[in-house]
Amino acid sequence: MNTSTRPQLQITTLAGGIGGARFIRGLTQSDLVGRECDVTVIANTGDDIWVHGLRVCPDLDTLMYTLGGGISAERGWGREDETFTTKAELGIYGVEPTWFGLGDKDIATHLVRTTSLQAGYTLSQVTEALCDRWQPGVHLIPMSDDRCETHVVVDHPEKDSRAAIHFQEWWIKYHASLPAHEFISVGLDSAKPAPGVIDSIMNADLVILPPSNPVVSIGTILNIPGVADALRNTPAPVVGISPIVSNAPVRGMADACLKAIGVETSAAAVAQHYGARINGGLIDYWLIDESDSAAIPEIEAAGIQCIAVPLMMTDIDATGDMARVAIDFALSGN
Amino acid sequence: MNTSTRPQLQITTLAGGIGGARFIRGLTQSDLVGRECDVTVIANTGDDIWVHGLRVCPDLDTLMYTLGGGISAERGWGREDETFTTKAELGIYGVEPTWFGLGDKDIATHLVRTTSLQAGYTLSQVTEALCDRWQPGVHLIPMSDDRCETHVVVDHPEKDSRAAIHFQEWWIKYHASLPAHEFISVGLDSAKPAPGVIDSIMNADLVILPPSNPVVSIGTILNIPGVADALRNTPAPVVGISPIVSNAPVRGMADACLKAIGVETSAAAVAQHYGARINGGLIDYWLIDESDSAAIPEIEAAGIQCIAVPLMMTDIDATGDMARVAIDFALSGN
Repeated sequence: MNTSTRPQLQITTLAGGIGGARFIRGLTQSDLVGRECDVTVIANTGDDIWVHGLRVCPDLDTLMYTLGGGISAERGWGREDETFTTKAELGIYGVEPTWFGLGDKDIATHLVRTTSLQAGYTLSQVTEALCDRWQPGVHLIPMSDDRCETHVVVDHPEKDSRAAIHFQEWWIKYHASLPAHEFISVGLDSAKPAPGVIDSIMNADLVILPPSNPVVSIGTILNIPGVADALRNTPAPVVGISPIVSNAPVRGMADACLKAIGVETSAAAVAQHYGARINGGLIDYWLIDESDSAAIPEIEAAGIQCIAVPLMMTDIDATGDMARVAIDFALSGN
Repeated sequence: MNTSTRPQLQITTLAGGIGGARFIRGLTQSDLVGRECDVTVIANTGDDIWVHGLRVCPDLDTLMYTLGGGISAERGWGREDETFTTKAELGIYGVEPTWFGLGDKDIATHLVRTTSLQAGYTLSQVTEALCDRWQPGVHLIPMSDDRCETHVVVDHPEKDSRAAIHFQEWWIKYHASLPAHEFISVGLDSAKPAPGVIDSIMNADLVILPPSNPVVSIGTILNIPGVADALRNTPAPVVGISPIVSNAPVRGMADACLKAIGVETSAAAVAQHYGARINGGLIDYWLIDESDSAAIPEIEAAGIQCIAVPLMMTDIDATGDMARVAIDFALSGN
């Protein structure tokens, strides 16, 4: 690669919401990363949902708000200094869902998106338009412009039968406490990767899987036809950061998702779930937390190069330092 | 009529927004009216508009909020203790219209309406459902379930040509300051009266035209095929209350509307614009303000019985007293 004409490191990441967004904020906004990166973010849209007639894209919005400086620091989703006036009124009208956190500032984003989609623009185009305001400092693209929603098969507590409910209902209303028998991506078979998804993976200098949920965030993106193959075939190294530390998710409820697909909640099990590229899998390198360093031999035996570092994204610079390690580790073999 | 089986006075009113709503609040909520009334309100929906993908029905909402105790006392439209967070955010996104007053509480109403309409319910059904919450104490029905929107032909200040703009744009953005060449009801020809509109006029004991805008509120309802004929043919007396006092609208910009249709802004001219039922017109009785009492001979010469009383709706009881006079006056000839 001729660095004189392409001085920036071209990085492509797959990402879900909070974990991915915080990692990418460190990657792009901390001086500790130590190099210029041109970052493309392929966002999970399997969590997207119609709420009160509004098209809500939780992961795209979390990424956009986090990288654009508008995220609620306390909640990690939605807007800072948010109010919930409309939501309270909808509750008084007695219309469901009442469990979805629809903020008044946030509603403006959903109104712009919904009217733009209804006018015929694609989700990619709408996302680009919204980013005109937010200036996230990355190329933010949805995994697909096609509707492809994750549903969760559960024993429904109110219907006394097995039923598929929307991922958001499972995640927010039931707090992932109903055992998931299966995740179903409705629309997956006919979904195409959005423009730029495959190209950004194939043309990257480096692909990063941030510590997002390996099942319902990264996993959903990987299920879009063509994406996993692109990861297998890209000339770029692929490095992942474990979302599991000391056999528990750093945040969120990844353990409930891993259980549903029969994967143990451990840094080593997730690495092997992705699999080594040299054996037909998806990753070359894997970062685990220092507390899990005993797992390094098992992971390396599976063909994945592994390093243990502090994985807590306590602030932008701690995260930037983690990103620097991931980049250096993955490029060390090139 | 057998009052033993039908003790309440069946009153049907046509109404626009603020003026009509305040009159009907006096009619239904003041003890000074002195009798039990069962009131049906046929609301103008010509002002209805799609704003940011939301179906907004300003007159239905003003009636519902005013009669249901949720109206902003200061503004006369929208909700009390309202905030405009979403509106401000939409402005930051730079999407038009920015001139429409979309409150956060109000948005909940529009979301419920929009999703219900999109689910296939009629505007009548949606209005009834919203009124489950608001309990306005009247039968509130739209003039039509069909889309029928008032547009105003103006010399457009930004386009340098004659153009038809939505009534709300003319009214709110331009404050009715652009001379109106014509009002066009888009969809009028194929619009049918909503269920109950014709029946409520034909079966009423009394029909009242409150002091709403005679052109773009009452006039629009009258233009729905069948409504004016029902007014001409109902066995009930029809009484109107002048929205014009001392040659000026009591509130709003009815003068700009009257000018466009070539009617002078005076209590007498509006009475003659409606016309006497004995001469094929629409009203039998007409209330004018004391300050206009000199116009009584002219109005009565046109075949309309006229009385001058204080017409200022300063509070619910002042309005109730006005309603009592209108009822007694109109029923005196029966």
